[in-house]
Amino acid sequence: MKRLTGDLATIAAELRQEQLDLMAQNTDVEALVRDIIENVRQNGDVALRDYSAKFDKIDVADFLVSRETIDQAFEEVTPEVLVALENAKKNIISYHKHQLEDGFIDSPTEGVIRGQVVLPLARVGVYVPGGTAAYPSSVLMNVLPAKLAGVKEIIMVTPPQEKFNPAILAAAKISGVDKIYQVGGAQAIAALAYGTQTIPKVDKITGPGNIFVATAKKQVFGLVGIDMIAGPSEIGVIADDSAKPAYVAADLLSQAEHDKLARAILVTNSEKLADAVEVEIDKQLKTLPREEIARASIVDNGRVILTDSVDNMFELMNLVAPEHLEIAMDNAIEYLPKIENAGSIFLGHFTSEPIGDYYAGTNHVLPTSGTARFYSALGVYDFVKRSQFTYYNKDAVIQATKDITTLAYSEGLAAHARAIESRSEGKK
Amino acid sequence: MKRLTGDLATIAAELRQEQLDLMAQNTDVEALVRDIIENVRQNGDVALRDYSAKFDKIDVADFLVSRETIDQAFEEVTPEVLVALENAKKNIISYHKHQLEDGFIDSPTEGVIRGQVVLPLARVGVYVPGGTAAYPSSVLMNVLPAKLAGVKEIIMVTPPQEKFNPAILAAAKISGVDKIYQVGGAQAIAALAYGTQTIPKVDKITGPGNIFVATAKKQVFGLVGIDMIAGPSEIGVIADDSAKPAYVAADLLSQAEHDKLARAILVTNSEKLADAVEVEIDKQLKTLPREEIARASIVDNGRVILTDSVDNMFELMNLVAPEHLEIAMDNAIEYLPKIENAGSIFLGHFTSEPIGDYYAGTNHVLPTSGTARFYSALGVYDFVKRSQFTYYNKDAVIQATKDITTLAYSEGLAAHARAIESRSEGKK
Repeated sequence: MKRLTGDLATIAAELRQEQLDLMAQNTDVEALVRDIIENVRQNGDVALRDYSAKFDKIDVADFLVSRETIDQAFEEVTPEVLVALENAKKNIISYHKHQLEDGFIDSPTEGVIRGQVVLPLARVGVYVPGGTAAYPSSVLMNVLPAKLAGVKEIIMVTPPQEKFNPAILAAAKISGVDKIYQVGGAQAIAALAYGTQTIPKVDKITGPGNIFVATAKKQVFGLVGIDMIAGPSEIGVIADDSAKPAYVAADLLSQAEHDKLARAILVTNSEKLADAVEVEIDKQLKTLPREEIARASIVDNGRVILTDSVDNMFELMNLVAPEHLEIAMDNAIEYLPKIENAGSIFLGHFTSEPIGDYYAGTNHVLPTSGTARFYSALGVYDFVKRSQFTYYNKDAVIQATKDITTLAYSEGLAAHARAIESRSEGKK
Repeated sequence: MKRLTGDLATIAAELRQEQLDLMAQNTDVEALVRDIIENVRQNGDVALRDYSAKFDKIDVADFLVSRETIDQAFEEVTPEVLVALENAKKNIISYHKHQLEDGFIDSPTEGVIRGQVVLPLARVGVYVPGGTAAYPSSVLMNVLPAKLAGVKEIIMVTPPQEKFNPAILAAAKISGVDKIYQVGGAQAIAALAYGTQTIPKVDKITGPGNIFVATAKKQVFGLVGIDMIAGPSEIGVIADDSAKPAYVAADLLSQAEHDKLARAILVTNSEKLADAVEVEIDKQLKTLPREEIARASIVDNGRVILTDSVDNMFELMNLVAPEHLEIAMDNAIEYLPKIENAGSIFLGHFTSEPIGDYYAGTNHVLPTSGTARFYSALGVYDFVKRSQFTYYNKDAVIQATKDITTLAYSEGLAAHARAIESRSEGKK
């Protein structure tokens, strides 16, 4: 891992630039994706079939994955996996229930009623990648909050395959997906945004995907809602002398094995710990099935930062705003108020980050690349919309007329003023 | 106004297509904006000065608007406007206070603590257009929810001018803006996203603007948060025989005077009312200062839709998902449960839409172009982020190990499994 020391602001700026580089746009992809979206918008299912043949090398007869295929999947998944998925589901529901939101209503003055109604989105699309990046756990994480929010119809799309990963189909049924369509890439996002003869258009699209999927989501954003633009996965670990090097190393590696672009950052005030963690990483790397990926991530994007105080460790990590943040310190919960920017926080020596990936019930769809400064974990709040409502009776309008018309005329909007004035003229 | 009758689904599809056309992208603008952003990113203040000279025809000496200029503005605004702004502020605060959100904490099992912390964004930028589209009311609507959320620093940017609209500066001070910089267009958005020597970078950008501003916001989205992609303003009115034609006409016109692209839609089950509203519109149009704009909006984008039942009126309007929705019917509040998609709802014959623009306290930054299907009015929730946290003690990790490792191995992520397994080995 590259080791950084020195001025905090300089280190933070360097880390930030690296984050930006990792999430840099590719303009060739943008033009290609634009063409794909336009083609799907105009030609619907015909375009989808063409792209499936071209990109996935599969002639899709029916985009809808049949009930039988889904039921069949349950017989191919081990009982242990089904139990683990059900237990994860239980925890995800019990955590996300806290996010359910009520509307409100008030009456600030005689004759006035105001309020806010919270309503679920009508239809949501969830993208699930094919191949090795197909994670049943991600299906639960995307679908269950939507389900809790009350979304009426949840559509899943996933690239066509000769043989689907049965755990993905099982997770879809366990979490309550209504329909699964086999279509992937930018064309799947276009289908969800515009609708085709077969695939209904949705109100919001969530779920991870490759550069084509991410670029397509950004392009249809505004026409439909999207969750966020996800960059490479990240973990930050703040550790002091109380940390156990083997634990810290294992957790850094659990992030590194995702992707060569994944990034693991250790911030510590103990040079001894930093050295010991590096030794452990070398040792543990050698026996990992995904050694090559994890090693590339650690070598290219791993960072160790030495600071001289607890406050500096937190200050630096707040500037990084990591997706996952572990506090490998005794009494870790006491440091929670020092954390300003992090998607999901893991407190103490035993709260290994994969607990959150699979089990604790917190969401693992998280803001990356420093966007924890303004984004949150996926949650129930992402699947609702809020409508305001207002009622004024005649007396209340008359009471408010002077203030409203003063502002309307001062902004040069006479028709606004007259609409209000009309309410005091004559009688209804 | 163009009158539409017949099949509901056909009308809805036609209205939707028109919405899409009104929000269509302009690819020339996209390329130009991309260049501007890149230039500001690389050259900072120098680029800003060049663009100000080129686009605004002003040589800006100091981007920061001085405290004296702002204080001076208060002497140029009439006392009536200041009172109206203060009253509006009071109502906006009392409404938006309901949106303040607490975190939560729970302990689903022995040895496990989970929760969510709600934190304000650190720094927010608000764009305020120059010229005739400069609305002091919009300053309040953008800034006050951020202030309530606890945002530490609020930066306002507005195009340089020989003489600023004093009401804008007054509204900025009344609502609690920390600093005002005179810079506009795409270059202002770039400055907020990347920071320059003078202008600090922010975590989120809100506020309306022209096509350059909107395109720039979409391009920097992901690097910073943005509020939404705003299209032309819209009003939908659902009215029956109980409605007063003069009121309905006045409210439709209050929307139409904004912009030739603004759209007013009347849905009614009464042909008599439809006819009477059209007569009233003709009559009222003739005396409007902004007659030309309002007339173009009504002729090109105004629509009257006749349906044969109350349910159909609501079904159609739910498909349109208008920014503003008036229910011009007796006992309007009883129909609230029928409304699925609308940014802000105005109930009953006296609740004229401009009440919401200026006074009621509900927000007037609202989802347009059908995006009320998935977006909400700007609110306190737009200026916070939520961080998850988790604590597991050793026993709790051991308890969860089987489920977690089962899922991790099934997804091919051995380093995830090993990180968990490491916690049961040896002792800390």
